[in-house]
Amino acid sequence: MIHSNDDTIAAIATAASDAGIGIIRVSGTRAIEAVSHFYQNAKHEFDLQSHQSGTIRFGYFCDTKGDLIDEVMVSVMRAPHSYTKEDVVEVNTHGGTMVMQKILHELISDENICRLAEPGEFTKRAFLNGRIDLTRAEAVMDIIEAKSEFALNNSEKQLRGDMRNIIEDMRSKIIYEMAYIESALDDPENYDLTGYKDRIMPICDKIIRNCDKLIKSADEGRVRATGLSTVIIGKPNSGKSSLLNVLTGEETAIVTDIAGTTRDVIEHDVKLGNILLHVIDTAGIRDSADKIEAIGVEKARKYAREAELILYMIDSTSQINDEDIEILTSVKDKKIIVLLNKTDKEDEIIITKDNISKLLETVGVSSDVPVITTSMILGNGIDELKNAISDLFFNGKLVPEDEIYVTNLRHKNLLEKAYRSLCLVKNSVEQGLSEDFYTIDLHDAYESLGLIIGEEVGDDLVEEIFSKFCMGK
Amino acid sequence: MIHSNDDTIAAIATAASDAGIGIIRVSGTRAIEAVSHFYQNAKHEFDLQSHQSGTIRFGYFCDTKGDLIDEVMVSVMRAPHSYTKEDVVEVNTHGGTMVMQKILHELISDENICRLAEPGEFTKRAFLNGRIDLTRAEAVMDIIEAKSEFALNNSEKQLRGDMRNIIEDMRSKIIYEMAYIESALDDPENYDLTGYKDRIMPICDKIIRNCDKLIKSADEGRVRATGLSTVIIGKPNSGKSSLLNVLTGEETAIVTDIAGTTRDVIEHDVKLGNILLHVIDTAGIRDSADKIEAIGVEKARKYAREAELILYMIDSTSQINDEDIEILTSVKDKKIIVLLNKTDKEDEIIITKDNISKLLETVGVSSDVPVITTSMILGNGIDELKNAISDLFFNGKLVPEDEIYVTNLRHKNLLEKAYRSLCLVKNSVEQGLSEDFYTIDLHDAYESLGLIIGEEVGDDLVEEIFSKFCMGK
Repeated sequence: MIHSNDDTIAAIATAASDAGIGIIRVSGTRAIEAVSHFYQNAKHEFDLQSHQSGTIRFGYFCDTKGDLIDEVMVSVMRAPHSYTKEDVVEVNTHGGTMVMQKILHELISDENICRLAEPGEFTKRAFLNGRIDLTRAEAVMDIIEAKSEFALNNSEKQLRGDMRNIIEDMRSKIIYEMAYIESALDDPENYDLTGYKDRIMPICDKIIRNCDKLIKSADEGRVRATGLSTVIIGKPNSGKSSLLNVLTGEETAIVTDIAGTTRDVIEHDVKLGNILLHVIDTAGIRDSADKIEAIGVEKARKYAREAELILYMIDSTSQINDEDIEILTSVKDKKIIVLLNKTDKEDEIIITKDNISKLLETVGVSSDVPVITTSMILGNGIDELKNAISDLFFNGKLVPEDEIYVTNLRHKNLLEKAYRSLCLVKNSVEQGLSEDFYTIDLHDAYESLGLIIGEEVGDDLVEEIFSKFCMGK
Repeated sequence: MIHSNDDTIAAIATAASDAGIGIIRVSGTRAIEAVSHFYQNAKHEFDLQSHQSGTIRFGYFCDTKGDLIDEVMVSVMRAPHSYTKEDVVEVNTHGGTMVMQKILHELISDENICRLAEPGEFTKRAFLNGRIDLTRAEAVMDIIEAKSEFALNNSEKQLRGDMRNIIEDMRSKIIYEMAYIESALDDPENYDLTGYKDRIMPICDKIIRNCDKLIKSADEGRVRATGLSTVIIGKPNSGKSSLLNVLTGEETAIVTDIAGTTRDVIEHDVKLGNILLHVIDTAGIRDSADKIEAIGVEKARKYAREAELILYMIDSTSQINDEDIEILTSVKDKKIIVLLNKTDKEDEIIITKDNISKLLETVGVSSDVPVITTSMILGNGIDELKNAISDLFFNGKLVPEDEIYVTNLRHKNLLEKAYRSLCLVKNSVEQGLSEDFYTIDLHDAYESLGLIIGEEVGDDLVEEIFSKFCMGK
């Protein structure tokens, strides 16, 4: 069911589990009225209507019979000075799920006054009411879901309007040319298209380069934001779990354990400096007669095939054998870093970097594969690992430059469309087609870029984008 | 480590999972200063110091380098008009865990200005600063954790001060008598203790009755608040899971599935009218050769032994046999309700209420055990079940009276102590001991009641009580 955007809406805006404070947010022309039926100030007067915009007051939220539900703080933000540009009232309660639900239940008891908000509906209104464009609205969701410093920073830039500014700049250049061509075709006496080809080509080139840079930022942006899919493999007892412990031990606060689809594969988000790794810890790979273990090993191989980065652990105190060759062969087309582990056991080391070089040669892996000597017990080699990953994936840049990265697939696809349209403009120019051919493709590029910031965007797309939001936002 | 109550403290006050809004709360003499270093208003000015009390304003929270962390709403509540009676600043952010943590991290980066709050520390300060007594502080936590309408209502009464008023009323009566006795002993010319025994006895009786009533309310209060521990047992395929489906289907919104300690026992919170049942769904009980099933059956027996209410399901279309006798025998000392199920299969019914009466007699169960005919397919018998539970546990009262129930074990224990002290006063009177004996026990009663509301309470107890609170409260 599509609800009206004129309705007054309410939802729990904080997370739905017990905490110190919870917020029920109400927005719309009847927001103050909706809450005023239940709110009494400290003197037990019903006076919400008189609250000034931008104030927060203590009071009591009572049910229709006048029985106290909770002591609350109520803030009033009148249109247009609010998140949605509508009247907004936020009821801060004691953050128990039961009490939040009860207050929400009272507020939406008369659907004619106030109904339950759909997911993302507050931010949708901020967009529809013109407070923020679509890139900034999407940034809100990205901020909430950010799981790395990079993702958060990049989303904040997007929220600040950096992406919108870049897109609007390109659009303004395109529309200027469209207008110029159209004027010249309408009024050839005053506008001259002689030599226009020489003018439009560098402009197209510049916008194409801009699009290209943003498109290329998307892969790195995604990896930086959501983590590099990393699989640790190696023979049993080579130190795989120790590596994970060392990695997670560094900043345990941001380590999350996600139960894998199977019992024998565990996933972790690990932060290595500024790099976020989504690490999959696998069963040691070996040929096993044990049926259940064999299943685990097969899973490990499968994850390794899908990973973006392979960390291959080798025990330097143990002979290399056919199993190593077999495992490495199965991932030889991947980005690999070899970790030569247990180097603290100085007297027992029998495998050196030279041995590894020969092994890699045998397997047919590029000789550029970094080989790092490590000791999980001493914690040696972690910095080298960090640098090696940075070289392999981020052109050696550990700290991302102060540029915005495209992290939204929708944006990337639309940038690619704009890119293709502008290439068509260049084609038309090169083929000597008349100027009115240019305008069609220029218009397509203009429209694709417009969809990114939410210009020219249809209701369906708006519904689809905001339905992915969480409740209360 | 015991921190100073003079420190300025900060914590995330909303639940620690992603949501639309998150709040970081700061309290103390340096609260405004602590936030002002990071907060810029909409015009990017640092002006938090000038914000009036009771206002909420849009702005930017930036790190020490001036880089934006998030767009925020900041509310300022100056002492004493705040939750803690100290200066309080609340920073409302986009509710991502990462962004909340980052903002908190900045705020507590200089421990000399602001440190991380301990669990419950905000409410502890509200208590220490005299805004609320201990029963009201404890009510805050109960509201947050409330899992039933009853628990919520009762906690709200406690927050409103109902419990404090009752306790203070009893205390004022006791201290009046203590003062009277003391005055008479000091100044016998003006105060006469002749016939005082006849005066003190009814006063003690009245307070004792009050205490007794509150103590007795504790069990019912606890059951109503946290749910009646209920186990459904019966032979396989008698309709146990269907009963649970019918019960949970009524108000699925408040059903929570709690993974049991074992895979074969699932716990649900089910609301039946005003009654909250904490239902444990067990494996069908039968002698099983299957080892794993046998473990499940053993668990079912164990849970049944610990339950407060047994719902025994019998399939009315299937013969009663030794297994029924055996199972019923194992729980015969419990409160039992027998459900004679599948009565929709009219043509196949072979077991009647009479058969059940005989079965109960054989087992030696009281003939008062309610037997209810049910059909889970038609949903028949649920109202009767509700009434039967109400009769067994709540003296037939489905809606609790508008009285306060003791739900806090600490309160119950202290009421029992006060009760015993007052009985000692009566003993002394009956044994004809002199009046100065009364005052010792009167004083003990006065002190025990004082501990409930937080008078005469030591630092250790305060620490212990508030340490059970959640973070940010």
